[in-house]
Amino acid sequence: MPGYVMHKEELTKRLARIEGQVRGLSRMVDEDRYCIDILDQISAVNRALEKVAVGLMRDHLGHCVKDAAAQGGAQATEKIEEATEAIARLLRS
Amino acid sequence: MPGYVMHKEELTKRLARIEGQVRGLSRMVDEDRYCIDILDQISAVNRALEKVAVGLMRDHLGHCVKDAAAQGGAQATEKIEEATEAIARLLRS
Amino acid sequence: MPGYVMHKEELTKRLARIEGQVRGLSRMVDEDRYCIDILDQISAVNRALEKVAVGLMRDHLGHCVKDAAAQGGAQATEKIEEATEAIARLLRS
Amino acid sequence: MPGYVMHKEELTKRLARIEGQVRGLSRMVDEDRYCIDILDQISAVNRALEKVAVGLMRDHLGHCVKDAAAQGGAQATEKIEEATEAIARLLRS
Repeated sequence: MPGYVMHKEELTKRLARIEGQVRGLSRMVDEDRYCIDILDQISAVNRALEKVAVGLMRDHLGHCVKDAAAQGGAQATEKIEEATEAIARLLRS
Repeated sequence: MPGYVMHKEELTKRLARIEGQVRGLSRMVDEDRYCIDILDQISAVNRALEKVAVGLMRDHLGHCVKDAAAQGGAQATEKIEEATEAIARLLRS
Repeated sequence: MPGYVMHKEELTKRLARIEGQVRGLSRMVDEDRYCIDILDQISAVNRALEKVAVGLMRDHLGHCVKDAAAQGGAQATEKIEEATEAIARLLRS
Repeated sequence: MPGYVMHKEELTKRLARIEGQVRGLSRMVDEDRYCIDILDQISAVNRALEKVAVGLMRDHLGHCVKDAAAQGGAQATEKIEEATEAIARLLRS
């Protein structure tokens, strides 16, 4: 069971809000709104997604990675490598 | 008329795809999918939004800013400051 | 003459400070300082570099791009494309 | 002993190279080099710093966080929170 299950409701609510923000972006384009206002809304969506990512990473480290670390061995090493690679991809995105 | 009007159809299509990706994120959470897979999907949405932002910035510089620059004066300076601030916000988001 | 020439002294001062911050990072590693403190110092260097980048972009838009836009034609289009690509690379870095 | 101690030599080498890149930035400004070339060099420094950050995070998760997780209790929770906050600061920088 993924670590975020405890915060599932919160996550779902945040993602629904982000979906609404993206729909708002489409509407802004449709209404020929000013570029800078659309760009600022994109910045806001990025920040909201980043908060979701940080929350997921917290839950992942606090459950999957922690449990694997407690057991030790190759699986711990693998989980840590996997989390590190995900952090690297987030940083580059 | 905003500069992106020429690419409005393309923009609308991309944003519809991003909205679908965000809906996909909600579904992944709902199905208790693995954290790392959700994080990677967030990275993908961020990259897709960044491409939209770069496209909008290109159109904005090529129309609003270019036109203001051609006329010169205070409005040119103002438009350039405004675009710079939007770039700064994108970098920080 | 590049647009930043007017702010050359300021830029040089900021870059000297950043060089000192990077030297500080080496010292922290040398002294076996705590990972999280080093990571936070890296975040600070990134933010300082980003501010330099935004300042350079402001000057570039306000001089090279503005001048090219005032003259119009293919060179204006080329300068705007070039600036857009540099923004895209900054966003991805 | 911080987790990166095992890779200290590698880290020190990378940071020395980054310090040289920042010194190169100062030289570029001093020689009135083209803004876009300087901006691209800033993008390169950011990427190099990001790689150092990812390497440090890998070592930190693989040592400090893993050891704390193996012992469990409040310290494990605290270490995970601390690492998450550092990731959040890196993402925002």
